[in-house]
Amino acid sequence: MTVLLGFALTLLVLGFSRGLQPNWVREEPELVAVPSKFGSLWPLPQKVQINPTSFKLSSGSFRISDSKGSSAGPGCVLLQNAYRRYFEYMFGSKKQKVNKSGKSDPSELSELQVWITSADSECDGYPSATSDESYALSVDQPVAVLKAPKVWGALRGLETFSQLVYEDDYGAKSINSSFISDFPRFSHRGVLLDSSRHFLPLKVILANLETMAMNKFNVFHWHIVDDQSFPYMSQTFSQLSQKGAYHPYSHVYTPADVKMVIEFARLRGIRVIPEFDTPGHTQSWGKGQPDLLTPCYSGSQASGTYGPVNPILNTTYDFMKMFFKEISSVFPDAYVHLGGDEVDFTCWKSNPDIQQFMARQGFGQDYTKLESFYIQGLLDIVTATNKGYIVWQEVFDNDVKLKPDTVVHVWMNGGGCDKEMANVTAAGYTAILSAPWYLDYVSYGQDWQNYYKVEPLNFNGTEEQKKLVIGGEACLWGEYVDASNLTPRLWPRACAVAERLWSAKDVTDIGDAFNRLSAHRCRLVERGIPAEPLFSSFCPKEYKGL
Amino acid sequence: MTVLLGFALTLLVLGFSRGLQPNWVREEPELVAVPSKFGSLWPLPQKVQINPTSFKLSSGSFRISDSKGSSAGPGCVLLQNAYRRYFEYMFGSKKQKVNKSGKSDPSELSELQVWITSADSECDGYPSATSDESYALSVDQPVAVLKAPKVWGALRGLETFSQLVYEDDYGAKSINSSFISDFPRFSHRGVLLDSSRHFLPLKVILANLETMAMNKFNVFHWHIVDDQSFPYMSQTFSQLSQKGAYHPYSHVYTPADVKMVIEFARLRGIRVIPEFDTPGHTQSWGKGQPDLLTPCYSGSQASGTYGPVNPILNTTYDFMKMFFKEISSVFPDAYVHLGGDEVDFTCWKSNPDIQQFMARQGFGQDYTKLESFYIQGLLDIVTATNKGYIVWQEVFDNDVKLKPDTVVHVWMNGGGCDKEMANVTAAGYTAILSAPWYLDYVSYGQDWQNYYKVEPLNFNGTEEQKKLVIGGEACLWGEYVDASNLTPRLWPRACAVAERLWSAKDVTDIGDAFNRLSAHRCRLVERGIPAEPLFSSFCPKEYKGL
Repeated sequence: MTVLLGFALTLLVLGFSRGLQPNWVREEPELVAVPSKFGSLWPLPQKVQINPTSFKLSSGSFRISDSKGSSAGPGCVLLQNAYRRYFEYMFGSKKQKVNKSGKSDPSELSELQVWITSADSECDGYPSATSDESYALSVDQPVAVLKAPKVWGALRGLETFSQLVYEDDYGAKSINSSFISDFPRFSHRGVLLDSSRHFLPLKVILANLETMAMNKFNVFHWHIVDDQSFPYMSQTFSQLSQKGAYHPYSHVYTPADVKMVIEFARLRGIRVIPEFDTPGHTQSWGKGQPDLLTPCYSGSQASGTYGPVNPILNTTYDFMKMFFKEISSVFPDAYVHLGGDEVDFTCWKSNPDIQQFMARQGFGQDYTKLESFYIQGLLDIVTATNKGYIVWQEVFDNDVKLKPDTVVHVWMNGGGCDKEMANVTAAGYTAILSAPWYLDYVSYGQDWQNYYKVEPLNFNGTEEQKKLVIGGEACLWGEYVDASNLTPRLWPRACAVAERLWSAKDVTDIGDAFNRLSAHRCRLVERGIPAEPLFSSFCPKEYKGL
Repeated sequence: MTVLLGFALTLLVLGFSRGLQPNWVREEPELVAVPSKFGSLWPLPQKVQINPTSFKLSSGSFRISDSKGSSAGPGCVLLQNAYRRYFEYMFGSKKQKVNKSGKSDPSELSELQVWITSADSECDGYPSATSDESYALSVDQPVAVLKAPKVWGALRGLETFSQLVYEDDYGAKSINSSFISDFPRFSHRGVLLDSSRHFLPLKVILANLETMAMNKFNVFHWHIVDDQSFPYMSQTFSQLSQKGAYHPYSHVYTPADVKMVIEFARLRGIRVIPEFDTPGHTQSWGKGQPDLLTPCYSGSQASGTYGPVNPILNTTYDFMKMFFKEISSVFPDAYVHLGGDEVDFTCWKSNPDIQQFMARQGFGQDYTKLESFYIQGLLDIVTATNKGYIVWQEVFDNDVKLKPDTVVHVWMNGGGCDKEMANVTAAGYTAILSAPWYLDYVSYGQDWQNYYKVEPLNFNGTEEQKKLVIGGEACLWGEYVDASNLTPRLWPRACAVAERLWSAKDVTDIGDAFNRLSAHRCRLVERGIPAEPLFSSFCPKEYKGL
């Protein structure tokens, strides 16, 4: 890799301490953002060479076009849409008149050709767990070329190209001669948003999908329903949202909304994995589906409150069959997240019918067996819909029989999650990691550094085991976030997770990360995303909203 | 006080635990918002009586008008402006055609008359430390009457009136028969914003002044410059912002900007107290004012870095004289905040000229004496401009001779601030409290409750001493906030401080506070302010931005 010279980063971060700290601990001067040799690239590509030669870009004449040999032509809506999007990002308010003279400055770069190299571009498909996101980008005269086997890699490469563009000292859009070849370290790079504790308006979800794409995230884990509300409008069971949403009209996702989210995500190479968490976390389900939840007892009387899904009724499984049949057709992804976390046994224990059932089944007093009984039934149902499943770690911990392709989602951080990662992969299951990345936990200062320092493969295990770790997710649970504060709380903190999951294992220089991330967050702000600052600093163009 | 019946609070907060807590500590079901008998009033007025009888309000016929006997007529721009503002808040998008038939529903309330009772309404003046903010509000037929000695009380009463208005089950704007008499417990109720660590666009400052008024705050403590940047455009010393701002044009407050902030605040009964903190926290000053700062030495050589303001040069005092002369005329408030906190002696100690000066003055090695020497000079300069001053507690701690009307700002929380409050008031000085209200320190969960539980007079001292505590300020220091996240981070957390400083001492019911604050925060959201949620919940109208 060569050093980037003359990169005009107009960002400046001052490292003075305010010192107004508790207990009068005077802070050491903190990180001061200076230009990185990698400019503002985020996440850092696998191989980067940036040369000193720079070219100018004119919004009047610069074009992004399909390369001659590309398997994706003008009919590929996904790419055409991306070309427009990235043109806007790069030139924004700085649009010149279209240059019709045909004359161009010798130092000008006039074109980026996008070349999908494999016969099937996958333009009209959905991204998947095995999508090829690799690309190679060559920025040189006469034209820059972005080569990718599939459209998914082209999307990632377009983002990288746009991140190479900067304004020189005279405000001219410029890019340095560069050669980049890139691919993700992990295939599953997700963000979890929770639309149950607070309803998230469509606008918020779409803006965050947009920002995910700017960080090369490729999975939107949509924790769509939970105890607090059921905003998913089911076509089979309309009462679920009619009764279970915060409001049956203003606080629901209609089928058209869901479709829009899925298509908006697809156009950005992002999978949408919905989570319908059972048997716990289902209070809101019970409002629109009588008899689904277990009636809790107080002594010999039903108390009027309800516990987890009732696992001993046939009607429960009939319901789940129909419900997940709908889900499997609404959501195109090959996986659905089935939850399975935090089942509270108190209510089950109180219910005499459940007690009898336990006795008949020979479960004794071991309610994890009852939980497993339910989950087993559910997994069979979902398997029949031809979907794979992701489950929270308890399902694995409780020895439920899982399909070999089950993905176990590790989230508990209490005793360190390394042991769990080792156990899950030792048992031959695929794992994704979230335990260190619960972004709803906020604290004073630069907590992004803690997220950044995580090494997902830092557990005792064989090479085979490590290969079973397919990635991770940044989780922003919704107790304390809604449309008012979600976006600045998520960004740029989730960017740290994005780079950890995309870039090479040895990309760990926190100082260089600070420099690049400071510039990257100003880019997010300039693109209209209220990403919060890392530390005392300014952006050339501050956020224009509130 | 009577109980409010039939108050249609459409807000709901569910108290289920997600339980995804570190160490698997299961949360107890948390506070569930239910309608308070005081509706959504915030801060709670001193005396409230809300009766069951309700009246309807029609945007087509409802009017806010000057009462016949009022000393403020149609020429009072401040009130006319406020009438329009509160009409908008109350009726927003729900405007009906103007009712010209003259017929009105017998259950309708058609008018709020505003009656300024003292001969001088102070309409064209500025709010001050001794402004009368009291008011009495009677909502009854045929007309509601808001009586206040001065316009300042009328502004507070208009906010209260607007908080009494709600939508009934059929969407009709309604208000219950109510009788309220009210005044603030403390006269100084402030919010500190810091425009130096990050530049805050004018729009952000104005929106937060607006929100302050919705919470009856009356002081904007503008920590306008600091080490990191000097965005105040001085007319006397234009180089200060030319060189010291993050950017000399896009990141400065022009004289017109400052005027606009002051007038916008005045129209809302808010004082603007600027802070120009010296001798520390002045790195940015040094860029545009050579020789102002102390050159630091490394051995016998000047190191090229600078320390606090140089206290041994006559030119320093000449500069301060001219600078504070300008400040005293630009800012109309009778007080200016002079800072004086956190002076680091390292640089002074390194400088041979300072060492000589110390010897000549007989200060020995006690650099607090040098600090006091400087501050004493500064206070004399500011006194000559006929301004009073507020200083951070160190100035008092270091035994600087202070005018009797000096306000000491208590901010250090290390060993508990009670002792400092006791000491300051025992010495006969006026005190304002900020130590427990540093809102830049964020943590997971409902930290507003901690701010709410503070009792400012909870220190050992006589009644005379307690009377010297004139209020407090919520401080949002700027290291980690800018336009992207300031507003949701400040609100509704600062609301807790607002109620503590306005309402009676015995208003401490945290459950009732939760109920009212949940509704109040949804009102802020409906008024376009991205105030963050207290907990899992929804607002009928969610925030429409990002």
